[in-house]
Amino acid sequence: MQQLRTASYTGLMGTLFLDESLAILARVPAALDALLRDLPEAWTEANEGPGTWSPREVIGHLIHLEKVDWMPRLDIILQYGPGRPFDPVDREAQLRERDGKPLAVMLDELSTLRGENLKRLRALNLGDEQLDLEGRHPALGVVTARQLLATWAAHDLAHLVQIGRVMAKRYRHETGPWAEYLTVMH
Amino acid sequence: MQQLRTASYTGLMGTLFLDESLAILARVPAALDALLRDLPEAWTEANEGPGTWSPREVIGHLIHLEKVDWMPRLDIILQYGPGRPFDPVDREAQLRERDGKPLAVMLDELSTLRGENLKRLRALNLGDEQLDLEGRHPALGVVTARQLLATWAAHDLAHLVQIGRVMAKRYRHETGPWAEYLTVMH
Repeated sequence: MQQLRTASYTGLMGTLFLDESLAILARVPAALDALLRDLPEAWTEANEGPGTWSPREVIGHLIHLEKVDWMPRLDIILQYGPGRPFDPVDREAQLRERDGKPLAVMLDELSTLRGENLKRLRALNLGDEQLDLEGRHPALGVVTARQLLATWAAHDLAHLVQIGRVMAKRYRHETGPWAEYLTVMH
Repeated sequence: MQQLRTASYTGLMGTLFLDESLAILARVPAALDALLRDLPEAWTEANEGPGTWSPREVIGHLIHLEKVDWMPRLDIILQYGPGRPFDPVDREAQLRERDGKPLAVMLDELSTLRGENLKRLRALNLGDEQLDLEGRHPALGVVTARQLLATWAAHDLAHLVQIGRVMAKRYRHETGPWAEYLTVMH
């Protein structure tokens, strides 16, 4: 009985974790769409200086990882476990793929890819046992499926933060004396 | 002729500045709505520790400033100039106004107030001469209408950054070894 209770409790936690992560993963692309679609290029092409990314390049990065990172790595965990390390991911692929696609098309692409990936993730109906399965990151070592999904969601938020920061900094001079109050500028 | 060219150029700059600022001001509340509406409270009530704000409290702050800060201060600049200092703004009013309003209602309120304010701002049809008008900030001293509007837009982005950061940090532990790669966590 104790055994059953524990299993049930752990199962609920897994469901909660998945629901909470899916809630972020479903919303961030929509938030980025609401923020960036049809925004003047002065904002979407701005960056923080040499070697830093513009909002457009961040969207390219999110699209690339939607194809090669999150779900492919989950598949490797579920099928092979830690015996087969993940393929390394190119975090700068979007910088070489400057194919001149309009940002609106890129936002559509992100939304479509994310929708497909979340549909597949939901269909897997992962329980705690599967969330605890391990994989091997080529640099970080052993990680779990749960950590991978948490990172997918946190990575979305991290890049939302980056995009907001890049755009805010564009107005550092324009805000005049107020820049002192805006810690994002510093 | 030189005079005319200069005037025309400066006018265009003012229009561009206004268009670019309005583009941000119109989109950030929609982006926050897309991010936060119906999100589990575990996300919207999270904060970064004692004395820090949750996403819900940030939305309360944005609502409060929509009523007492940006347009009222612009009105003071346009009507009185630097002779009449702005009224000080309470940046923590939202922390005392815990009236238990659902976040969805607060998001609606922000959207409505912002829509009304931007409608009025557009109707003012400010040119460069008006954008250069001065006002007096109670602590920062002389500021211009242009700096006020730039700060309104940058302030939106700064709080979008804050909300993304607060929520990302909630998953610091959950991301396991990956937290090392996510600078937003540190």
